[in-house]
Amino acid sequence: MKHGQISSKELSDFIRERVTIEETYSRSMSKLAKSASNFSQLGTFAPIWDVFKVSTEKLASCHMELVRKLQELIKEVQKYVDEQAKAHKKTKEEVASTLEAVQNIQSVSQALQKSKENYNSKTLEQERMRKEGATQRDLDKTGVKVKKATEVYKSFVEKYATTKTEFEQKMAETAQKFQDIEESHILHMKEIIQSYSCSVEDTHKQIEELHQEFVNNMENTSVESLIQKLAESKGTGKERPAITAKTAKAVPPPRPEHVLQTNCLLFLHSSKDGTFELLRHLFSFIKL
Amino acid sequence: MKHGQISSKELSDFIRERVTIEETYSRSMSKLAKSASNFSQLGTFAPIWDVFKVSTEKLASCHMELVRKLQELIKEVQKYVDEQAKAHKKTKEEVASTLEAVQNIQSVSQALQKSKENYNSKTLEQERMRKEGATQRDLDKTGVKVKKATEVYKSFVEKYATTKTEFEQKMAETAQKFQDIEESHILHMKEIIQSYSCSVEDTHKQIEELHQEFVNNMENTSVESLIQKLAESKGTGKERPAITAKTAKAVPPPRPEHVLQTNCLLFLHSSKDGTFELLRHLFSFIKL
Repeated sequence: MKHGQISSKELSDFIRERVTIEETYSRSMSKLAKSASNFSQLGTFAPIWDVFKVSTEKLASCHMELVRKLQELIKEVQKYVDEQAKAHKKTKEEVASTLEAVQNIQSVSQALQKSKENYNSKTLEQERMRKEGATQRDLDKTGVKVKKATEVYKSFVEKYATTKTEFEQKMAETAQKFQDIEESHILHMKEIIQSYSCSVEDTHKQIEELHQEFVNNMENTSVESLIQKLAESKGTGKERPAITAKTAKAVPPPRPEHVLQTNCLLFLHSSKDGTFELLRHLFSFIKL
Repeated sequence: MKHGQISSKELSDFIRERVTIEETYSRSMSKLAKSASNFSQLGTFAPIWDVFKVSTEKLASCHMELVRKLQELIKEVQKYVDEQAKAHKKTKEEVASTLEAVQNIQSVSQALQKSKENYNSKTLEQERMRKEGATQRDLDKTGVKVKKATEVYKSFVEKYATTKTEFEQKMAETAQKFQDIEESHILHMKEIIQSYSCSVEDTHKQIEELHQEFVNNMENTSVESLIQKLAESKGTGKERPAITAKTAKAVPPPRPEHVLQTNCLLFLHSSKDGTFELLRHLFSFIKL
């Protein structure tokens, strides 16, 4: 029983330590998600950091949910520890009579031994006297002593038999009681462990789903879409800017327009002054 | 390109931070496994701590394996960062002629604008003089100026056309080059992320298997087997000790034997002096 109480306290300690580990992990993951959100919001890679950020935040949440579940479980374990202590106290009172039966059999056993020794010595004395041809009067006197020793011995044998029966019964009861306590303790502990195990498994499943989501999001973030997004955010157009066909007023040259023909999505700018805007981008890109 | 280098450095930072988190988690789990192995080795629950210990150690190993894989990946990212820097340097040299073309078109454009303004003002002056009825000599003089301005304007229009063609070609080439660089950068980053993602997924799979193993081990650890183990370790027997049938020498009572009849596995001791040994156990158990 003492070990039962130790083990339930240790189980609670174990879960508590796991909670601390999961909490630290979760907080670190939150911090990592924050790092991802602080990473450069410029360039084609920026939207990927969003995917990382969201996934890492969710991972942190999964572990925090495990923390909450295990904290609930610790409360249950604590409740069990208290109940267990009460039950053990009650059992201790109940087995007091067994202790008494044990003390009885010890003392009766000693008395039986003594009476047996007395019986033996008296019988031997009687025999010795017979061999040595003692007087009838002496033999009678010894006969009385032998008879008395036999009676005492007999009475202790009987008493021992009764005490032994009682002792065996008490011991059997107590042993059964202790075994029952032990069995129900292990059953209870196994229930707690199952609850612990389920919480851990739920977390694994959530993390697995989360990971699949991350993989899907990455697959859905194509190279084209990233370049497209950057082109849009930079205001570069997909199409070649149209020549604003002003009818040439002066005969000699048509008014020159800065236009640029290219198939690139990225670096075309649709504003009239597109080429210079484009230029600014180009050289900001190669700023090493 | 600049953002490309920032993002690959950031990706390396992100993975490095994850490595630190996983390493801390793994070390904490090892510590937890050690706690489990330091828990009481007495009582029926002791073998369960072995299951916890082994499972927690393996969990620590899984995360440590992830650490190793990600450390390898960081090396790859670092290699890519270096290659990227070299490639960008090369590109910067290659686009030098584009910068030249840009400067050309800017200066030609300004010259064109000036020559146009000159042409306009000369034309206007000629018209004004015609309206005001200027002398033929003055008109001829202005006519020469207009002709010269027209020629200069025309030559700049032509020069602008050539410069513009060159500019457009260079810009298109450069834009394509930059777009190619951007595309291959994202592709490379996605490859790294896929490798990261696979390592994480492998770890999840291992943890899942590990958890299943834990669940199986728990299921296989029955209440009966735990009690059985304790009974064996304590030297308590399953069977009632046999009465050592000494033929009673003395007529009156048979020599009493301390025996105990019970069906409990736990508290039976097979030695002759079993009951007292049993007693010692019983009361050590209830020591609260």
